[in-house]
Amino acid sequence: MGKLLIRGADLMTMRDDTFIIHDGAIVIEDDKFIFVGEEKDLPQEWEYDKIIEAKDQVIMPGMINTHTHAAMTLLRSYADDLPLMEWLEKRIWPVEARLKAEDVYWGSMVAILEMIKSGTTCFADMYFYMDEVAKAVEESGIRGVLSHGMIGVGPNGEKDLAVGRQFCKDWEGKADGRIRTMLAPHAPYTCPPDYLRKVLEIADELKVPIHIHLCETETEIKNIKEQYGKTPIQLVDEVGLFDYPVLAAHCVHLSDKDFEILKKAKALGIAHNPQSNMKLASGIAPVQRMLNEGLTVGIGTDGASSNNNLNMLEEMSTAALLQKVGTMDSTALPAGECLRMATIYGARAIGQDAELGTLEVGKKADLIIFDFSKPHLVPRHNIMAHTVYSAQSSDILTVIVNGQILMENREVKTIDEERVLFEAERTSKELLRR
Amino acid sequence: MGKLLIRGADLMTMRDDTFIIHDGAIVIEDDKFIFVGEEKDLPQEWEYDKIIEAKDQVIMPGMINTHTHAAMTLLRSYADDLPLMEWLEKRIWPVEARLKAEDVYWGSMVAILEMIKSGTTCFADMYFYMDEVAKAVEESGIRGVLSHGMIGVGPNGEKDLAVGRQFCKDWEGKADGRIRTMLAPHAPYTCPPDYLRKVLEIADELKVPIHIHLCETETEIKNIKEQYGKTPIQLVDEVGLFDYPVLAAHCVHLSDKDFEILKKAKALGIAHNPQSNMKLASGIAPVQRMLNEGLTVGIGTDGASSNNNLNMLEEMSTAALLQKVGTMDSTALPAGECLRMATIYGARAIGQDAELGTLEVGKKADLIIFDFSKPHLVPRHNIMAHTVYSAQSSDILTVIVNGQILMENREVKTIDEERVLFEAERTSKELLRR
Ligand SMILES: [Zn+2]
Ligand SMILES: [Zn+2]
Repeated sequence: MGKLLIRGADLMTMRDDTFIIHDGAIVIEDDKFIFVGEEKDLPQEWEYDKIIEAKDQVIMPGMINTHTHAAMTLLRSYADDLPLMEWLEKRIWPVEARLKAEDVYWGSMVAILEMIKSGTTCFADMYFYMDEVAKAVEESGIRGVLSHGMIGVGPNGEKDLAVGRQFCKDWEGKADGRIRTMLAPHAPYTCPPDYLRKVLEIADELKVPIHIHLCETETEIKNIKEQYGKTPIQLVDEVGLFDYPVLAAHCVHLSDKDFEILKKAKALGIAHNPQSNMKLASGIAPVQRMLNEGLTVGIGTDGASSNNNLNMLEEMSTAALLQKVGTMDSTALPAGECLRMATIYGARAIGQDAELGTLEVGKKADLIIFDFSKPHLVPRHNIMAHTVYSAQSSDILTVIVNGQILMENREVKTIDEERVLFEAERTSKELLRR
Repeated sequence: MGKLLIRGADLMTMRDDTFIIHDGAIVIEDDKFIFVGEEKDLPQEWEYDKIIEAKDQVIMPGMINTHTHAAMTLLRSYADDLPLMEWLEKRIWPVEARLKAEDVYWGSMVAILEMIKSGTTCFADMYFYMDEVAKAVEESGIRGVLSHGMIGVGPNGEKDLAVGRQFCKDWEGKADGRIRTMLAPHAPYTCPPDYLRKVLEIADELKVPIHIHLCETETEIKNIKEQYGKTPIQLVDEVGLFDYPVLAAHCVHLSDKDFEILKKAKALGIAHNPQSNMKLASGIAPVQRMLNEGLTVGIGTDGASSNNNLNMLEEMSTAALLQKVGTMDSTALPAGECLRMATIYGARAIGQDAELGTLEVGKKADLIIFDFSKPHLVPRHNIMAHTVYSAQSSDILTVIVNGQILMENREVKTIDEERVLFEAERTSKELLRR
């Protein structure tokens, strides 16, 4: 494959030294950036297979959704505005128990379609029938960090260990490296210490990180405290979880002591899911404090049944607004930090910041291009604030992952959109009748 | 003008008795709905000038933005993530002091363009150079409830009274009734009791409602209490404000006694501005309690400088999510209530619920049509939850106000979009250089 040139745009590189580059150009060869800078500094002698003219447009790294359950799109708007336990036990779990592999494939495909169209180039997923999710990632061209959700307390605990292990062995590094894997013990309240130890043994063997839900609700904290006499963070710390690379979703309720533990973790990423935390009334995560204390925080949407979309632009703006009102400080979580959380901090949270998260020579070519000629993006005072506080997913024209153009001028090239919408609708209807 | 038929869609009428109508049809003649119901019940003998096929689409009343300062689009993303007083005193006010009439025209036009493209058909505006805003409303075809913001404490107090009065006399009922007017004493801390009394005298004379900011921040409550020994609500109540129809923006911080006063108000509408309240760290308004106690609450975006867009879909979803996390109750402010707040409750808040806010025979023909064939709106479990929690402004295909098609298939027919974007950009640049 020859060189692809994109020129004329303003770049938000997410690098501290050159965050914004005006009149920028980007050159991609194979799966990597080989030039990121001002257009005037382009090597004269290069020739290009394709040139994308991006005058007045804005380019940033593709967004990284650090926590979701993609196939839950099948349950989008199926159960809303309910008490948490009724939502989970009476609506979500019974339907999930009836899910089949094919459902998960179509649910993941419609999720990936939505994610590409809203600028997400990589997502960290925890679900089941993960072979289907991996297939959908492979076919669609997106990047995924995939994990089989393990429930230790149910009848399938041992089976989950085996399935989760086998999934990593089958898929780690596949699809030209676009697929990475993790082990996913669901949460401390579904995976007791002995079970968690078994998961960590597999992590030792396979050298893959752990993806887990931690400290999502006050009820969780209360129950774990009653059962073990300590917080969930203390509990999993004593099992040795934080000696491994960990992607921890939520972390809404943390004590000072929990903070001390998290700060000593070996390689911890936190996935902040503001819309899910609001919709399920879980609480307001102390994100500004996490950042102040040096923790790595990315942004996630969680599943579509508690959001109800997978839109990272909305999630950035909600993260900023929620943190401001939650701390009663309008300077909390400014736009630049939100952009970093959705990109380079997210990349760090999934352990891939050497390859993803900035526009930078040598990194994987994952980027998105915004059309800024929209009424809600005029006048152009500040492209960072515009992107976080005002931009819409439909402003994203073009999405590139691993050097491949997945969407150009809003047309997704790797997915048969009409078929996916049809099959997702059909599958979900069948699922509810089953 | 002959009849316009729209058919095949699901309707969200916002009427309690027939909230959702499947396979619906709507007929518009002149500026009014003359049929809203199932397509099979359409009178056989009617003939139509134009038919819009809306199979699988979703139609609801146009959204009513109950509080904004449209021309502040010129300051969109000009000042963000700052402490409130620094934002207001060092950034916003100095620039506003340099605004000219022409700036306000272009700022309002780009705001109206954005509002039409995101499904807003009526907005309640408080600003200055309001003749320019009225011209923009007249030309664009949108509906406006316009008011000149009055500041009693400055050197222009008396002038503001005269200008505000004259504006109502000049514009009330103009543009085929699309323009309605109010008197707008800015807030209790800028309009002391004696000044407010003068405003109420004009309200007596002109029979127009009052638009005012009330109880936005804790600082406001504290300062008023120190100065007068009572809350802002008690203060304006003693002046007699609530004997008049009032549109009160914010009402974030209310005591039990304030609630009792508000419940006795003659015709009070509250404009809830969740994104602005979050972004400026003002607080979380007790919206669910307001609704429980029978108060009328609409939704507003506030100005673009504290939001940073004028997107009522975002505002609905943020209202729901914020109320859930604010009360730690996931059942608070369900989707149906949010939809009502954005439509019929908003209409009631501006005193126009006899003519606006529902799809209903005899009411003014203001509606919006959504394309639901989008990945983020599949599967179609619940169109109400989809609209509030997942829909995007770009899903809105068609917007009709007063029987006139303002946008069809996302093309705005009444505004030269390219020129407005150009002039708004130019004007804002000149403004900052001035
Ligand atoms: Zn989750
Ligand atoms: Zn305001």
